[in-house]
Amino acid sequence: MTQQAILDQVSTIFNDHLPFHRHLGLRVTRYDAEGVEVAIDMADHLIGNVHQQILHGGVTATLLDVTGGLTAFAGVVAREEAPSMALLEQKLPKLGTIDLRVDYLRPGRGSQFIATGTIIRTGNKVAVCRMELHNESGTHIAFGTGTYMVG
Amino acid sequence: MTQQAILDQVSTIFNDHLPFHRHLGLRVTRYDAEGVEVAIDMADHLIGNVHQQILHGGVTATLLDVTGGLTAFAGVVAREEAPSMALLEQKLPKLGTIDLRVDYLRPGRGSQFIATGTIIRTGNKVAVCRMELHNESGTHIAFGTGTYMVG
Amino acid sequence: MTQQAILDQVSTIFNDHLPFHRHLGLRVTRYDAEGVEVAIDMADHLIGNVHQQILHGGVTATLLDVTGGLTAFAGVVAREEAPSMALLEQKLPKLGTIDLRVDYLRPGRGSQFIATGTIIRTGNKVAVCRMELHNESGTHIAFGTGTYMVG
Amino acid sequence: MTQQAILDQVSTIFNDHLPFHRHLGLRVTRYDAEGVEVAIDMADHLIGNVHQQILHGGVTATLLDVTGGLTAFAGVVAREEAPSMALLEQKLPKLGTIDLRVDYLRPGRGSQFIATGTIIRTGNKVAVCRMELHNESGTHIAFGTGTYMVG
Repeated sequence: MTQQAILDQVSTIFNDHLPFHRHLGLRVTRYDAEGVEVAIDMADHLIGNVHQQILHGGVTATLLDVTGGLTAFAGVVAREEAPSMALLEQKLPKLGTIDLRVDYLRPGRGSQFIATGTIIRTGNKVAVCRMELHNESGTHIAFGTGTYMVG
Repeated sequence: MTQQAILDQVSTIFNDHLPFHRHLGLRVTRYDAEGVEVAIDMADHLIGNVHQQILHGGVTATLLDVTGGLTAFAGVVAREEAPSMALLEQKLPKLGTIDLRVDYLRPGRGSQFIATGTIIRTGNKVAVCRMELHNESGTHIAFGTGTYMVG
Repeated sequence: MTQQAILDQVSTIFNDHLPFHRHLGLRVTRYDAEGVEVAIDMADHLIGNVHQQILHGGVTATLLDVTGGLTAFAGVVAREEAPSMALLEQKLPKLGTIDLRVDYLRPGRGSQFIATGTIIRTGNKVAVCRMELHNESGTHIAFGTGTYMVG
Repeated sequence: MTQQAILDQVSTIFNDHLPFHRHLGLRVTRYDAEGVEVAIDMADHLIGNVHQQILHGGVTATLLDVTGGLTAFAGVVAREEAPSMALLEQKLPKLGTIDLRVDYLRPGRGSQFIATGTIIRTGNKVAVCRMELHNESGTHIAFGTGTYMVG
């Protein structure tokens, strides 16, 4: 099984089988060796401010955390010489966030929000990732830094 | 207008007029001079794991962030000698999270989750709070630390 | 070899054989099953402000980080049923800080500063600790939160 | 007085009049509108490991914190239409770290370490900066994220 097939399977799980992702409307829109993108369309139920149409900070944190976890897991898959479906079953349940920092830069205004991530520290136990959230116009909304258990 | 009346008004806004809070089902269950409690009942739509009934880490982050914001705002109200409704209108829109750290300690298992907070640094511009999330049995699920703009 | 003998050996290493600790003047003043204390006496070379006699924030960060590492390592020793000197040789070199958050609460004024720590998440790979820095009068100067590799 | 003259004055203060900077040997090697660099030469007294010649994590935290503070202050100066020496006297004493996160990526090996920073959130009260530490070969040693009081 190729790396991409494993990543596709993870995308399917995250998009179709995780209740909270469906409840919010977030979806993995890209997940391959070059990167991950997690997106959400602005919707009334995501608003966190009575006077302004601004994304709730909890949605921002969720998007960054999910993106960091996916980024960390892509690192796990990339480290394997011969990745197989067994890797998914063994390693995905071990994936967990140890800690997360979110830096809120600007109010979350826009019609769509896209989170991306890069791995900054890899290992067979722990990975550290940095994440960014932008809106559809490229406005930078938030930064994230997360430490993930991966094995 | 007493401090408590202002805090009650904030609770009403957070519980009834913030779309994302209603979408999740979180509610401010206590908000007075001695403390704040934000609670959520476990529900299918909050689950973040296909195999286990575990609260999504984004819900944890949301509960901690909301609790920190309320804790910081209570500090703003407590600093005023003669608080009035004008304080609510002037200061609540200025409340915003600058940064948030979440430490995930244990899987979020339980039937209810309760977040509490304390202020660790006060000022007329910035407040820093520490937050905790426990389940209904008192199991400690997560810690949070947040820096908030308050003026 | 008892747990305490191992902790004593670690104290000796940290106090006598770590150049940067000697350069600053920090020392482990307590290290047993109940807790850790790391102290430093105020000195001219630790000052970080031209106008005021305030501890440099880097000293605060150093004290909190060292204390967190010691706290995490005490957890490693406590988890062993039959700890031996081999544990020290195997595990101490693996101890490392993954990430650290420092919350600066008040200016570092005083004649002595004492850091303490507690473990909030344990595991055989990663530990998370919270730390506090007070001066000799009990004034709370800073909080810390650190994630440590322990195995 | 030009912006650069103010920044030069700050460099002089940080290099010549801050006891802890002199004690460590750190110095501001660049400070202008385009960026800041803070450097330190490896020395015996900076070592934090008995077996290996590795920079103590407290030195890393110090370099990142100082760099973040300078980056935040450059933002303060840049926001002024007509900066004057009075700005230095009014604003520099107000500069302070609220919180700092350090992500340790690799052991601090090398002969020189250079910290750089960029501002990610500006305001007249609070600034947030990201910092990086590399060695003389360009190896990335650590990331930092800091929230600073600036007014």
